[in-house]
Amino acid sequence: MEILKGADVVAAINEELQDELKKFGKEIPHLAIIRVGERPDDIAYERGAMKRLNGIGLKCSNYIFPETITHEEFTSEFKKVNEDKTIDGILLLRPLPKQIDEKAIETLIDPQKDIDGISPMNLAKVFAGDDTAYAPCTAEAVIEMIDFAGIDLTGKRVTVVGRSLVVGKPLAMLLLKKNATVTICHTKTKEMENTCKNAEVIIAAAGKAKMLNDSYVGKNAIVIDVGINMDENNKLCGDVDFETIKDIAAMATPVPGGVGTVTTSVLAKHLIKAAKLKKIF
Amino acid sequence: MEILKGADVVAAINEELQDELKKFGKEIPHLAIIRVGERPDDIAYERGAMKRLNGIGLKCSNYIFPETITHEEFTSEFKKVNEDKTIDGILLLRPLPKQIDEKAIETLIDPQKDIDGISPMNLAKVFAGDDTAYAPCTAEAVIEMIDFAGIDLTGKRVTVVGRSLVVGKPLAMLLLKKNATVTICHTKTKEMENTCKNAEVIIAAAGKAKMLNDSYVGKNAIVIDVGINMDENNKLCGDVDFETIKDIAAMATPVPGGVGTVTTSVLAKHLIKAAKLKKIF
Repeated sequence: MEILKGADVVAAINEELQDELKKFGKEIPHLAIIRVGERPDDIAYERGAMKRLNGIGLKCSNYIFPETITHEEFTSEFKKVNEDKTIDGILLLRPLPKQIDEKAIETLIDPQKDIDGISPMNLAKVFAGDDTAYAPCTAEAVIEMIDFAGIDLTGKRVTVVGRSLVVGKPLAMLLLKKNATVTICHTKTKEMENTCKNAEVIIAAAGKAKMLNDSYVGKNAIVIDVGINMDENNKLCGDVDFETIKDIAAMATPVPGGVGTVTTSVLAKHLIKAAKLKKIF
Repeated sequence: MEILKGADVVAAINEELQDELKKFGKEIPHLAIIRVGERPDDIAYERGAMKRLNGIGLKCSNYIFPETITHEEFTSEFKKVNEDKTIDGILLLRPLPKQIDEKAIETLIDPQKDIDGISPMNLAKVFAGDDTAYAPCTAEAVIEMIDFAGIDLTGKRVTVVGRSLVVGKPLAMLLLKKNATVTICHTKTKEMENTCKNAEVIIAAAGKAKMLNDSYVGKNAIVIDVGINMDENNKLCGDVDFETIKDIAAMATPVPGGVGTVTTSVLAKHLIKAAKLKKIF
């Protein structure tokens, strides 16, 4: 089995972005990361994103608010960032604390700065297959990996396990745009093993540690693992039971070191696209 | 094979709506139908919608514009209808002539009056599985038929043939909301026969006369036909070759007299919902 590593995809995207960035001169694209509270997951993702973006030569600013901030206060602070002309893109770490109406914030975000695809305008564009859409970065990272591996999805049977609005659903739309025949499975699916086994490409976005083992994977399948979980020994693992599929699958992505690594490169790509569009219009 | 007729579903919806309508008193829900040009399809659909809505006791007004109307003129006329407080819902017959920017009009429509689900806000809600969404009427008519037949979709293998933004894609989302395992096929799908044959429920929305015959339908499948085409004798027919599946399928919808009949009842249902929400807020 060939192992498709995130690092190789990241290197290829970085190279492409370096070329793009040269055109900007001193007006470096600028990302605002907005975080409420101190959740370790958020802090880890924020740190990773900043490191990646700074490494490419992009600018990041952090806006950190206390977990107890009211909806009104947060909305007012969010609007300031949203309207700040020096900012090209916004990454809002979610979920937000319960007192904040997350849907209201999603509707508020300027679709041109919404580079992680959370606004209704962007979701509608992803749904429609519009080229100007910013799809959620993780969903698009999967497509980047498949493209990098040179896999033509046209007419292929692709099964997505998971139907979230952050990964499963937008990914299904991106796959359709690539002309794949797409099947969406989820917790209520009956005979999940057979459905997955029948797929030429399996994308695991179920959020369940090591759920997909050899009984789910067909001979020579390509397996992309979006899961980030902790196993019984408190070690990072994916949704795929990697060891069990080694002699079955043709190609698979590891966790860690797979899709997750590519996500912040997609974020950087989107930021540059947003900054470019702002300059044109 | 059992034949699932549109008329029975229509009768059930009408009864439900009559009860709803009693609550409105003299403030009868009011639909605006907007048509540009004189396309026979549009005129036929408009006539059918008016007849159905008037029959239920709902109010319809027609706004008809010449095919040569400019984008600016049409936008201005559209805004008048959109802002008219006596109007609860808008049905815009599409496609619009080429000189009109259809996307701009879709973005303009008040989401609360957008009862045929063409605005980005509504599409995003359909995509998200939001209960307050207005899905495109034809897509929802399929769900009405399945519900009427008492079919529980939970965990069932449902294959949708077609990926348009008017039927295939929104329908896939409505089916996911019903907990079906959804496969989306299209023109680029390889081995379409096998994929369809494996489905417990097949929904044909390909727009190709009599395309799905006995080699696409598995034993005891339920077949819902969304197609409206003309056959070689210029007779109305669906996407399903009905005669060939009679001894295979457990249930199927005819064309004419199937899903198409239910569409305007869904339109009436949406109009009443919109009028009700306007009264509440």
